[in-house]
Amino acid sequence: MTKPSPARVPRRRTAARRDHSKIKTFRWTGTSLFILEQRALPHKTRYIPCRTHRDVARCIKDMAVRGAPAIGCVAAYGLALAARERNFRSVERLVAHLEKARVVLGATRPTAVNLFWALNRMQRLWGTSPLSPKGPKGLEAALAKEAVAIHREDLAACRRMGELGAKLLPKNAVVLTHCNAGALATAGYGTALGMVRAAFAQGKIKKVFVDETRPYLQGARLTAWEMHQEGIPYEVITDNMAGHLMKTEKISAVIVGADRIAANGDAANKIGTYSLSILAKHHKIPFYVVAPFSTVDMSMPTGQGIPIEERSTREVVFVGPTQIAPKGAKARHPGFDVTPAAHIAAIVTDRGVVRPVSAKNLARVAKSK
Amino acid sequence: MTKPSPARVPRRRTAARRDHSKIKTFRWTGTSLFILEQRALPHKTRYIPCRTHRDVARCIKDMAVRGAPAIGCVAAYGLALAARERNFRSVERLVAHLEKARVVLGATRPTAVNLFWALNRMQRLWGTSPLSPKGPKGLEAALAKEAVAIHREDLAACRRMGELGAKLLPKNAVVLTHCNAGALATAGYGTALGMVRAAFAQGKIKKVFVDETRPYLQGARLTAWEMHQEGIPYEVITDNMAGHLMKTEKISAVIVGADRIAANGDAANKIGTYSLSILAKHHKIPFYVVAPFSTVDMSMPTGQGIPIEERSTREVVFVGPTQIAPKGAKARHPGFDVTPAAHIAAIVTDRGVVRPVSAKNLARVAKSK
Repeated sequence: MTKPSPARVPRRRTAARRDHSKIKTFRWTGTSLFILEQRALPHKTRYIPCRTHRDVARCIKDMAVRGAPAIGCVAAYGLALAARERNFRSVERLVAHLEKARVVLGATRPTAVNLFWALNRMQRLWGTSPLSPKGPKGLEAALAKEAVAIHREDLAACRRMGELGAKLLPKNAVVLTHCNAGALATAGYGTALGMVRAAFAQGKIKKVFVDETRPYLQGARLTAWEMHQEGIPYEVITDNMAGHLMKTEKISAVIVGADRIAANGDAANKIGTYSLSILAKHHKIPFYVVAPFSTVDMSMPTGQGIPIEERSTREVVFVGPTQIAPKGAKARHPGFDVTPAAHIAAIVTDRGVVRPVSAKNLARVAKSK
Repeated sequence: MTKPSPARVPRRRTAARRDHSKIKTFRWTGTSLFILEQRALPHKTRYIPCRTHRDVARCIKDMAVRGAPAIGCVAAYGLALAARERNFRSVERLVAHLEKARVVLGATRPTAVNLFWALNRMQRLWGTSPLSPKGPKGLEAALAKEAVAIHREDLAACRRMGELGAKLLPKNAVVLTHCNAGALATAGYGTALGMVRAAFAQGKIKKVFVDETRPYLQGARLTAWEMHQEGIPYEVITDNMAGHLMKTEKISAVIVGADRIAANGDAANKIGTYSLSILAKHHKIPFYVVAPFSTVDMSMPTGQGIPIEERSTREVVFVGPTQIAPKGAKARHPGFDVTPAAHIAAIVTDRGVVRPVSAKNLARVAKSK
């Protein structure tokens, strides 16, 4: 991964910061992918130029880019880049290289299904016979076109979910969200935060409680940054304050994204989501999951089968340069947890709202593409 | 508050670190109080010398010393120091000064009742007529003696609670604790961690899950440090992992301390405790509160009346030098929350175990001093 060269940083960076609905999580130039370095947020806005699929894989693995839909999009661009890495003399040679690239990209993060969904969708371009009749250059162009389509569709899906989700909220809504399911987690606009954005545009949002979301602090760093830029009233809280605030203040809804939804509606999302769902249930607050249908894994009957990524415990023990526990301290870091369908009031997808959440209703919405 | 002078640091500091059951949270020399600077833990062990009641008040307010029982003990020593601050020519002048010192010490932190309990107990030495018949020097000596008695009684209370509490745990217990209710929060040995220590000595503890306890990280910094020194197996977790671990691993009990317990058994404790109590209830895991009877405020009918300290939001937004949210971010920082008696399986006190938790049973145990 080369260092960002100022000359190559996409134009309109400053404009993008002002144009609130268009925070650019990544930008495709046709030959390179520029990925917003989310680890530098909220204090710095800089882009990492990716010229190979390995650059993209590293950005995903090291969490320069995160969020299930965003990972799907950049992985698709990763394959588009792979096709440009050499001057392939035959479609067969290109396909062999693409298969290797697909393995590298697929090995970055195990929980979010959108990654595999996007890689499989890209693979369809070369996985069926006859192989590309237009030769390696034709396949290269088709891959780039498909990645752009995935990107555009994700943005459209977010807008659609925002529209559907906003209807679920009352006037003067006080909502609580966990992690970042915003513009930064998608091609733009966001899933859970897309619902907040749409409701805010309708004058329905009074305040957003932003869970800081330890250990990686996506809430404090990213969601607060998005809310700040949009002028949406918010307050950062530590994750352990949620129960107290549900008891002592009026909270209208908890809204989160998802990394993988099983066929019965069980939803894997950032660690802490399951705890929140129990707190919401106890306080009779509706708990909404917002995710594009690419997050639904119909091959997974229940949430029990979803692999939970164990990340480095260093991410728990250090905050910036500060070591918060004794040297040699043991720690745990499951990156995700699974919220049972029974705790979820509705799943808002780009194909419609699943409510009540059940295998039957998910299957019904699946067909209404 | 003067800087610690190496010559004045109490002896046996190194020894205390080795003698695991005797972590010295503070040490009284007869003329000065040395308070362990807990904000420097877990990386440094240093003591702050306090020669006046204002030195002590600052240590409490700034959280160099924290934990309800520990605050009570050092506040008592604060009054003992106040009596030595001038050469008082009459008991009346000394009493006027003590009353002022009592106000200063009482204004440091509002939630923990042990502070007021200790100040009131000390006040009894001068608040009843006839005034000290032995003159100002006699009252000064009586105050020091009483502070030492409070200190010793707290240590004995912790040992007693440990003994009673350990009986509630099964063999191979995996327990989860929040904040630090350990040796560092008391005169030594600890309340919740005293129960863990006693059970560990009996070979009953398999593992302790240590909630890091945002924002002040008392779990990661202090509880992990105590467990590390004792060789008790532990793992630091972020607060939001508790629900996931309760679901996926066998947890035998949640054990916490308290800052104030109302007459009906509602318990105020570190922010996040209330959330934990709901998670424990959902997973049918017993939730134990361990606190000396000085934590019970019989004048407070229910937890609704307990004042909840709002601390600086800077403590949420910064971890060490790292600002985790955007500049200008709004945040919240209620320092405590209240867990309803109905969520508590038992309150372990030095006067006996209150179980089931009710006003009637608390009143009964109150009498069995």
